[in-house]
Amino acid sequence: MALTVVGSIAFDSVHTPFGERDRMLGGSAVHFALAASFFTEVRVVGPVGDDFGDEEIAVLTDHGFETADIGRAAGGGTFFWCGHDEHDLNVAHTDDTQLNVFAEFEPKLSDGSRDSEALFLGNIQPDLQRGVRAEADGARFVALDSMNLWIDTARDSLVAAIGEIDCLLLNDAELRMLTGEPNLIHAARSVLELGPSIVVAKRGEYGAALFTATDTFAIPALPLEEVRDPTGAGDSFAGGFLGYLDGEGAHDPSAEQLRRAMVMGSVMASFNVEDFGTERVRRLERPEIDARVGEFKALTHFEG
Amino acid sequence: MALTVVGSIAFDSVHTPFGERDRMLGGSAVHFALAASFFTEVRVVGPVGDDFGDEEIAVLTDHGFETADIGRAAGGGTFFWCGHDEHDLNVAHTDDTQLNVFAEFEPKLSDGSRDSEALFLGNIQPDLQRGVRAEADGARFVALDSMNLWIDTARDSLVAAIGEIDCLLLNDAELRMLTGEPNLIHAARSVLELGPSIVVAKRGEYGAALFTATDTFAIPALPLEEVRDPTGAGDSFAGGFLGYLDGEGAHDPSAEQLRRAMVMGSVMASFNVEDFGTERVRRLERPEIDARVGEFKALTHFEG
Repeated sequence: MALTVVGSIAFDSVHTPFGERDRMLGGSAVHFALAASFFTEVRVVGPVGDDFGDEEIAVLTDHGFETADIGRAAGGGTFFWCGHDEHDLNVAHTDDTQLNVFAEFEPKLSDGSRDSEALFLGNIQPDLQRGVRAEADGARFVALDSMNLWIDTARDSLVAAIGEIDCLLLNDAELRMLTGEPNLIHAARSVLELGPSIVVAKRGEYGAALFTATDTFAIPALPLEEVRDPTGAGDSFAGGFLGYLDGEGAHDPSAEQLRRAMVMGSVMASFNVEDFGTERVRRLERPEIDARVGEFKALTHFEG
Repeated sequence: MALTVVGSIAFDSVHTPFGERDRMLGGSAVHFALAASFFTEVRVVGPVGDDFGDEEIAVLTDHGFETADIGRAAGGGTFFWCGHDEHDLNVAHTDDTQLNVFAEFEPKLSDGSRDSEALFLGNIQPDLQRGVRAEADGARFVALDSMNLWIDTARDSLVAAIGEIDCLLLNDAELRMLTGEPNLIHAARSVLELGPSIVVAKRGEYGAALFTATDTFAIPALPLEEVRDPTGAGDSFAGGFLGYLDGEGAHDPSAEQLRRAMVMGSVMASFNVEDFGTERVRRLERPEIDARVGEFKALTHFEG
């Protein structure tokens, strides 16, 4: 099994109440791929600039990613994001975004990336997502993430992109914004009518909820002693979720597989926020994942 | 077993995107007692005014509450609250509060109310809570709710009151505000150091979390088709939580009893919000409660 991800590969500068980092490795594709790499083979598609060095590439290849589709655009800079978090860590504030090489990005997939059974369209401009979706003709399970920016500025493209996928992942506030439905069940149903068979509402420190035509599942986030930087938590969630499904060969997943994938997404997001950027997931060992699945079980179990 | 509650008995005027009600029966003691009455015998302590008629009293006695300690203050008006909710229903906006008879309230407990094994100190001025706590010398399990107003204006009294109870229920934002700890685990630990052995963080549409020295439990809220008015949800949660524990005779509850009480609190809160004020819980039947416990199990279960 293999999983292709398209999304940003970035340098992030982040300031939280617990510290700061300057130009650390980040981006939706990177966070996603690191999380997914514990479960399946990952192929990364995305542009970087001249300033993206061998050291950064090595982080990716060391985790076993296929990097043939990471294109280095001569004369350009890597996508750059700068933001900060307040004490409650629920809302990220963007201070600066520099598209750089992303402004001219035209994704081209190698045969390997086209043949992957699963595809994740990370949070980039929806027309780019559609282009990748069309190229990835081997994909049997396709998920998409987006954000308020595209709901505001490229709504029709985003709705068209959502019509071509199996699973939408969005923050719950964005689900409400996209559909105009304040009630989350009604919002999820509206999305199911657009095409996807699965909707995942991401809720930050409150966990996540899953909706299909026949099932509803919700999981709280694990309360953590140490939360230093939530950047990338949503992409780590998606990486655990899709990576698990692809690793299980679940491209038409059952309700039980989807529930277990929600747990894996929650587990990976919980590690992501414990340190800055990719730092925690980069030093993560597989037994820690299994132990944390047990912690989620202990957190949520009750005798009916 | 019996459970005494002190708190407001009120007329509420509420406006939400789904409708409005003028001077409907409400108040923390009423919402709490209605929820708890499905599980145990409830005794209500609180003042009402001349305008609190036989019809309102009948609602309480019809549900089997002991109302000997509902004092009617001659020449006064019943506590009145007026508020509205926005579309997301997560934040209640207070437009008007009239203390009326509550301004002069000096709780005096009858022998029956003093002898109850369990006591809930609903959200009123902390010195009044302390007075009731001191009088209720039969109480073996005492829980307390409060709000940002008392953290701001009567912090020392509130901390003293918290030092005299077994279980604190607060919104998670208020737990952070009370302790100055942005991390919820650290906030809960700070409260445990003040005296209680149990802390419940209420999270509105996101559910609730429980912390003791040795256990952490979290439960999402049930996604609902119809949410019309969240007023009283926190008190309904507390009523289900404490009512269940008292009905089980669990005055030194085990972790498993506390988890089950969290489910009962969540169940009762989920009914409360489905209609205005007390309307849904007043027409609730016991089999609906058991069915909804099953829905919570289905919502949260996964194979570890």
